[in-house]
Amino acid sequence: MSVSVNRQWILNRRPVGEIADGDLVLRTSAPPVPGDGEVLVRTTYLSLDPTNRTWMSDVDQYMEPVRIGDPMRSIAMGVVAESRSGRFKSGDVVMTLGSWSDYFTAPAAALTPPPRTPGVDVQAVFGIFYLIGPTAYFGLMEVGAPKIGETLVVSAAAGAVGSLVGQIGKAIGCRVVGIAGSREKCDWLIEDLGFDAALDYKSEAVGPALRRLCPAGIDVYFDNVGGEILDAAMGQMNLNGRIVECGLIAHYNDTAPAPGPGNYPRILMKRLRVQGFIITDFMARLPEAFRALTTLHAAGRLKWRLHEVQGLENAVDAVKLLYSGGNRGKLLVKVS
Amino acid sequence: MSVSVNRQWILNRRPVGEIADGDLVLRTSAPPVPGDGEVLVRTTYLSLDPTNRTWMSDVDQYMEPVRIGDPMRSIAMGVVAESRSGRFKSGDVVMTLGSWSDYFTAPAAALTPPPRTPGVDVQAVFGIFYLIGPTAYFGLMEVGAPKIGETLVVSAAAGAVGSLVGQIGKAIGCRVVGIAGSREKCDWLIEDLGFDAALDYKSEAVGPALRRLCPAGIDVYFDNVGGEILDAAMGQMNLNGRIVECGLIAHYNDTAPAPGPGNYPRILMKRLRVQGFIITDFMARLPEAFRALTTLHAAGRLKWRLHEVQGLENAVDAVKLLYSGGNRGKLLVKVS
Repeated sequence: MSVSVNRQWILNRRPVGEIADGDLVLRTSAPPVPGDGEVLVRTTYLSLDPTNRTWMSDVDQYMEPVRIGDPMRSIAMGVVAESRSGRFKSGDVVMTLGSWSDYFTAPAAALTPPPRTPGVDVQAVFGIFYLIGPTAYFGLMEVGAPKIGETLVVSAAAGAVGSLVGQIGKAIGCRVVGIAGSREKCDWLIEDLGFDAALDYKSEAVGPALRRLCPAGIDVYFDNVGGEILDAAMGQMNLNGRIVECGLIAHYNDTAPAPGPGNYPRILMKRLRVQGFIITDFMARLPEAFRALTTLHAAGRLKWRLHEVQGLENAVDAVKLLYSGGNRGKLLVKVS
Repeated sequence: MSVSVNRQWILNRRPVGEIADGDLVLRTSAPPVPGDGEVLVRTTYLSLDPTNRTWMSDVDQYMEPVRIGDPMRSIAMGVVAESRSGRFKSGDVVMTLGSWSDYFTAPAAALTPPPRTPGVDVQAVFGIFYLIGPTAYFGLMEVGAPKIGETLVVSAAAGAVGSLVGQIGKAIGCRVVGIAGSREKCDWLIEDLGFDAALDYKSEAVGPALRRLCPAGIDVYFDNVGGEILDAAMGQMNLNGRIVECGLIAHYNDTAPAPGPGNYPRILMKRLRVQGFIITDFMARLPEAFRALTTLHAAGRLKWRLHEVQGLENAVDAVKLLYSGGNRGKLLVKVS
């Protein structure tokens, strides 16, 4: 095969605060050439996720930040355009860590074929079952370890991970309370996803609202945001409660270190367990998550919304939606 | 038997910040009368512990604060003066949660006889083996879960709990670094207790010192203090590190909520587990701790210092030593 043009979003400089014009630049070059054991992937979809912003910054994080001059990193789905590995052939659909590019190369060992999920659109197979769903599943079940009848609170509850966390929590018998950023999102959580309650943090103070909606306190708090919402939830955790630290989106645009939660002493007094979690630690166990998510979906207990943006050229504008709360469901970019 | 006079330190008002004159008052009254199933205990020793200050305040904590007008609560050892239970008889030595009093009553079910510890003074049996030693043992082994060759850092390392934590850590093969408040304390940790290193937080900045003394990072941080020392340690935790939240003495005299650790995001990025711990959850397993501590002591691997203050009348002045760092070893008050 031959490919002549490859568009790439290059990290031109590290954003300070919110992403600004010129931080990423769209460049055109020849497509990369796969090495031995690698494949060339033609990107079909990109997954845009809150953590993308941390990858742009040279801060303490769970993998190397993207280097200045490199294409922006992303979870990606695509079609093998050229294979130099016996494990994949041209035309195979694969999912992996790629980049904001028309084409990228990846080692065959890092590629995952889409799981078999009858009746699910390919966008959802990619956007929900690959890493977002497993993040919700392992984070809640392995780290949060919820029990029947416990109260589970999840922040960014209308987000990709949060909306799945709440539904998994409902499926195993928890009382589930979501925190989201609009009345419309809260209505969706309650009416469509079956959350027991939801609060709009933009229209009411989180502390009093949680006290009202969680009369028995909070047993598991699945945190996607950090900041004041984390602090409010921490202050209402029950004895032996668990906080799953999965995301800190409230801080990803910070330009200076923020103070930690003032309710930190409750970790001692209530013997809380606060544990950080990144899905990369569970890659060897993805089939377990696929099975769980497929089972829930087949039973009609797992729903989602996809927010699909058309065109690689719109990736930068799209990713900003995550930090303004402007997306409605799992954010994807259709590249080809 | 008949007892005519009982001195009690009564909580007269809740301290604001440091304990002030008049917060506790020494009153004399008739001794209490044990009810059915209870015993009257003549106090021989009181254990003074950092947590005592929290019990004086009406703040979020792990048990009810002492009520205004009640005698101040304390871990105590004493001799049964009168028994209304078949489980203990007059003259038995017991350890329990008592009060700053010549005499107090307690339910027989709450009393623990001293463990058999050949060659250990009675003060040490009480001061080290009862709750302080088990706190160090369960906190480190169950919550910290250290592994051979890992780096363990402990704060308030010359304190009663911290000095034992470090020695247990050494016994199981950790590199142990202590944080203490004077050069003399640091020398004691290294020369007498066998710590690998120690730093005096009053004479050098903790962050750079930890970086120097923990070149491989920190795997387990056993926190007795909170505040800036916790923050510095959190910022150097390794992947999958554990923070044992055992005490927050830096905050017990706070008059306003303090911010949490600014390095909180590292919990996510390094998948830390931060877990609160109170010895009261392990009371059913005390014999396991007694066995471990006795074994280490018999092997010459567990040392301690006792700081004994004479006279119940000096209890208030004594407890203040904990917050100024003025005590040298486990702080006890000899009552009779």
